[in-house]
Amino acid sequence: MSVQSIHFDADTEVLTILDQTLLPQEERYVEVLTLEQAEQAIKSLQVRGAPAIAYFGAFVLAKEASRLQDNPYFHLQLNQVGQRLIATRPTAVNLQHVIESLLRLNVGEDFEQIAKAIKQRAIEIFEQDVATYRTIGEHALTVLPAGGNVLTICNAGAIATSRYGTALAPFYVGKERGIPFRVFASETRPLLQGARLTVWELDRADIDVTLITDNMAAWTIQTKQIDAIIVGADRITRTGHTANKIGTLQLAILAKHYGIPFYVAAPHSTFDLEADDTIQIEERDAHEVTHIGGHPTALVGITVFNPAFDVTPPELITGLITETGVLEPTESVIVEHVGGNTYV
Amino acid sequence: MSVQSIHFDADTEVLTILDQTLLPQEERYVEVLTLEQAEQAIKSLQVRGAPAIAYFGAFVLAKEASRLQDNPYFHLQLNQVGQRLIATRPTAVNLQHVIESLLRLNVGEDFEQIAKAIKQRAIEIFEQDVATYRTIGEHALTVLPAGGNVLTICNAGAIATSRYGTALAPFYVGKERGIPFRVFASETRPLLQGARLTVWELDRADIDVTLITDNMAAWTIQTKQIDAIIVGADRITRTGHTANKIGTLQLAILAKHYGIPFYVAAPHSTFDLEADDTIQIEERDAHEVTHIGGHPTALVGITVFNPAFDVTPPELITGLITETGVLEPTESVIVEHVGGNTYV
Repeated sequence: MSVQSIHFDADTEVLTILDQTLLPQEERYVEVLTLEQAEQAIKSLQVRGAPAIAYFGAFVLAKEASRLQDNPYFHLQLNQVGQRLIATRPTAVNLQHVIESLLRLNVGEDFEQIAKAIKQRAIEIFEQDVATYRTIGEHALTVLPAGGNVLTICNAGAIATSRYGTALAPFYVGKERGIPFRVFASETRPLLQGARLTVWELDRADIDVTLITDNMAAWTIQTKQIDAIIVGADRITRTGHTANKIGTLQLAILAKHYGIPFYVAAPHSTFDLEADDTIQIEERDAHEVTHIGGHPTALVGITVFNPAFDVTPPELITGLITETGVLEPTESVIVEHVGGNTYV
Repeated sequence: MSVQSIHFDADTEVLTILDQTLLPQEERYVEVLTLEQAEQAIKSLQVRGAPAIAYFGAFVLAKEASRLQDNPYFHLQLNQVGQRLIATRPTAVNLQHVIESLLRLNVGEDFEQIAKAIKQRAIEIFEQDVATYRTIGEHALTVLPAGGNVLTICNAGAIATSRYGTALAPFYVGKERGIPFRVFASETRPLLQGARLTVWELDRADIDVTLITDNMAAWTIQTKQIDAIIVGADRITRTGHTANKIGTLQLAILAKHYGIPFYVAAPHSTFDLEADDTIQIEERDAHEVTHIGGHPTALVGITVFNPAFDVTPPELITGLITETGVLEPTESVIVEHVGGNTYV
């Protein structure tokens, strides 16, 4: 069974998170009691993954609504809570969408009723998304060869979503059904999400996983009979251009060279139909490349190029695996399936 | 000017090495006084790079010959020194070839004369090889675009050879002649020779160098207008199959995808005309992948695939840059140029 990194008890309103900063050395769950603690949990990456942050924000808002229901300034205070949550991660579009959608319920004079409605909707969003990721896993199983060797990068996994993940969903759904896979995880420098998180969560679910460094991908594909590559996505444009963790593009090129399929797994909420083939790529601090775990690995002060993401063009993508099926990466198919969809 | 990692003074017989285990944080030179210290220097990687180890062994043998010249068991003792040196790195073919070649001078009753001959020959080997690497650099300059952006991996550099290196030789020779390059160095996990060594030695020679992680190669080629890729080699077979540091193969595939040339720079001594397209690839300890600088980066005990090298097929190689010119990677050209050549 996949790990659940966020847990909210509807009756007791106890909110618990897996502290991802301690992985893989320690699996520790922390109860989140205050808004300040919640803000800190997002900022310090105890909670990470755009979808996971959004659910977490939703549950924090629900708890605060419940706490504030006897407060005469309920509407104002709750809106302020929402703004504070959004401000913890200004670029996290999912978080903003979810909080804004919940704050639209912040109308009328029955505060207890509003608090209840927000809590119910937060739980609904979470449960719906579990179903979405499970469906992505089911669709992925229709294209991945049972018993096959599959390569992935970064962590598009259970702990970054409500459950199951995107790229890792077929391995969890496959496990439930007795369909085995051998997964190869690329460590994903500079921040090592593959080594730290993907390997940890698959191993914990008793799924066969082998760690490689990022420069071993081609030799692994060639000598370990890799059947397919599957990755997640940070943003997919209307033209099918896919921004994902740096390193994704070269895996797509290797897949083409070796004649194996390359899949991107993502829910409709990852699509950005306003965007085309020009995606701005964030460059991050040189320190990430010149250090690992705080220890210098290179001459400090050297020139570094550190793009956080790259863009894979649609001609290198075999299929986009979404909750409504495996889509051809063409504008007409994408707009037909995803058009009109919003996050919640 | 390129760094010289091994220095031997013909008059005083003082032998000094750059302690490569301290790079890039510290550039410290150590005088090697005893055979035991020399053995330890090789085993602990204070001296590294197959050619550099061979010269170092030659100078140690020369020093020992000088020290032993009044010893009645000169022949026996010197042969034992040679065997001890070879045993420090049994797979280092260059070291074995050089030591065996020098020990062939260990005949006759004038020990002082033998010691002199060995010293002179050791110095000759070193000087000849400086000229060889310089010539490789000159030939590389005929194919690399002046002022261009060039990507490399691992450390086929000055400190792994007598001087200039192989893949890095054109940048040093270019520097002498006022031909600039912008070099991009892939960090080269798991042991980070690119980050630790290539970046250090190029920066020290005031050559423009930018560090990337290994998964950034494709995006760097695409967005930084990389004009060519150049790498070294550990072994090149008669069919042109090239074993080199893991990650080389996928750079060759990326070069083909982007339509840029991919060069392998190596002296004739790197060619193994007995070998064809089947090269055994050494797998190294999982600890290298799950740790960086002694610090765990992944779940300890996880399954790891850690091949030290990969094999790039000749169809992905634009040219083999040797001391006799830029060769087409075909069996007939290789045998014509390299056939009959031995290391010393």
